[in-house]
Amino acid sequence: MGEKPTLQSLASSLGVSRQTISNVLNNPQVVHASTRDRVLAEIRASGYRPSAAARSLRSRRSEVIGLRIRPAVDGINGSLMDAFLHALVECSQRRDHRLLLITATSDEQETSEQAALHTTGAIDGCVLTDTHLDDTRPAELAATGVPFVAFGRPWQDRDAGHSWVDIDGAAGTRLATEHLLDLGHRRIAFLGWPTGSGVGDDRRSGWQRAMADAGVAAEDLATGLLDQRTDDGVVEGTQAMERALRAGATAAVCASDSLAVGASTVLRRVSSAETARTAVVGFDDTPVAAALGLSSVRQPVAAAASRVVDLLIERLTTANDPPEPVHDLLTPELVLREFDRRLDQHAR
Amino acid sequence: MGEKPTLQSLASSLGVSRQTISNVLNNPQVVHASTRDRVLAEIRASGYRPSAAARSLRSRRSEVIGLRIRPAVDGINGSLMDAFLHALVECSQRRDHRLLLITATSDEQETSEQAALHTTGAIDGCVLTDTHLDDTRPAELAATGVPFVAFGRPWQDRDAGHSWVDIDGAAGTRLATEHLLDLGHRRIAFLGWPTGSGVGDDRRSGWQRAMADAGVAAEDLATGLLDQRTDDGVVEGTQAMERALRAGATAAVCASDSLAVGASTVLRRVSSAETARTAVVGFDDTPVAAALGLSSVRQPVAAAASRVVDLLIERLTTANDPPEPVHDLLTPELVLREFDRRLDQHAR
Repeated sequence: MGEKPTLQSLASSLGVSRQTISNVLNNPQVVHASTRDRVLAEIRASGYRPSAAARSLRSRRSEVIGLRIRPAVDGINGSLMDAFLHALVECSQRRDHRLLLITATSDEQETSEQAALHTTGAIDGCVLTDTHLDDTRPAELAATGVPFVAFGRPWQDRDAGHSWVDIDGAAGTRLATEHLLDLGHRRIAFLGWPTGSGVGDDRRSGWQRAMADAGVAAEDLATGLLDQRTDDGVVEGTQAMERALRAGATAAVCASDSLAVGASTVLRRVSSAETARTAVVGFDDTPVAAALGLSSVRQPVAAAASRVVDLLIERLTTANDPPEPVHDLLTPELVLREFDRRLDQHAR
Repeated sequence: MGEKPTLQSLASSLGVSRQTISNVLNNPQVVHASTRDRVLAEIRASGYRPSAAARSLRSRRSEVIGLRIRPAVDGINGSLMDAFLHALVECSQRRDHRLLLITATSDEQETSEQAALHTTGAIDGCVLTDTHLDDTRPAELAATGVPFVAFGRPWQDRDAGHSWVDIDGAAGTRLATEHLLDLGHRRIAFLGWPTGSGVGDDRRSGWQRAMADAGVAAEDLATGLLDQRTDDGVVEGTQAMERALRAGATAAVCASDSLAVGASTVLRRVSSAETARTAVVGFDDTPVAAALGLSSVRQPVAAAASRVVDLLIERLTTANDPPEPVHDLLTPELVLREFDRRLDQHAR
């Protein structure tokens, strides 16, 4: 009866180092393909089972990060979180971590799933997204001892005890507003969601401040005619832009590309196709904005994902001496779409 | 010195069943919130660590499925695989499985990563996507003993020994072609990729057969003037449609929504805006097609994801007596976009 194979016996019979075997199992891309296949074949033949489970029992680290993903609700705006997910997987993999996806129907279910996964060692920590007002998840995760980093600030407690990375939406709408002011517009509307959503209020505030700084339309800001509050959507964008037009608006900064698509359709009635496009700025720089030639505020999602992964792994690897929480606000950029003359010559 | 806590001692001190504790750790949504929090608190206080790693060592099942995700390359067409990913996570979770995401820069890296994850017990099996001609991954995974199901057929060996689920692209372009024939078009172009991609050739064949069945333009099919082969993209779609127009085309079936966006822009030059939209059919029913009011072929991605998960879990739970491979071709539907008069009244 043969001895139970060990890492050492396997290395001896293959004539390779223990590190090579470890690399085949943990970093296969650094091993030459022929070596890798030979090692994997021998592992299978020998019955050696260097399981992640066994390693995890020793290290107490699974090198897996939990993330809740949500059903796609808005076909136009949903692409932002998908881009964040792709970037998060790539950044995690570069640091030898992987992402475990869960779904949940409520915040409470999300945190209890993450707590259970953490308690059983399936994940080392998690990433929170879509933070909102009255968000109880940071407190619940802290209470259950699950390490996490949030993509999205805690809207009521910016000095929170956890690390978060967010994108400065107000800086984005300020850029958009200043661009429209530079084009000569004075009566610039804001099309955004009703007050009470952290993200929406933040985007509105950038437009408000840029308009106030430019000294224009203070009275209109007060009456709310230029400040159009609406649910999100293309048709909602047309309706809000109609109302803004009646208040004399010539341009619009929008809290989403869906609203911007609707707004540009309305503006086309009262101006040239080119003007209708350049007088509207959307938010998130979605494929739809690109296809329609709309300018839009682009969030640096890849940079945000990279920062989130770095902060979380730092937290996971210093469990006994957690680092001070970091609060990082990244600045978006304005993507101005040049009128595409290749397409335009056909459209006329 | 106290005894090391066990599932039984924990259940006794909490006054709950062992099943309740197991549910808190594995199916927290079925446990009342107050009970769940009390159990989790006691688990933490006691130091009991019912780790997934330990369970996995016993069961040899991690209940985790591996999936490679790719960087988003085309903003318009990428949404299909993201929709599949969302559906796959939801279907997996309903069956108590989770998805572990990896990235890879080559097919070879993908299969060796999956083999390593499987060997270490981090995943039980994986899902293959983006199958293509000369795809070596099914053979490599079979050789390394990794259970898998493919979303996408093996283009050269439809009787392959593994299970796959795919969507009948040819049936989709046939629906699109027959719809345009019904509208009175006879010279219907096909805008698609160069031959040699399984997916692209399949989509072309549906148009070819529908045109042949209708008895139209056999000579044009032969000359290739209506069969426009091009790389994917909006600008490429305008160029291909220009060439098709010179051959007398009045309508186009497209292998992607990107191509359809370009084609509809060109048709707008020679017809009304409404005709330009209704004479073009795209593929994948992306948010961009919806925003532009373009008809498009919709793939049943949620049904495909559900079928993939069911087949894989059946395979995983019958390891000693694997089921016969299943080859499932699902039928897409044609989404006809009504001209949206709410938007149109603004556009005029």
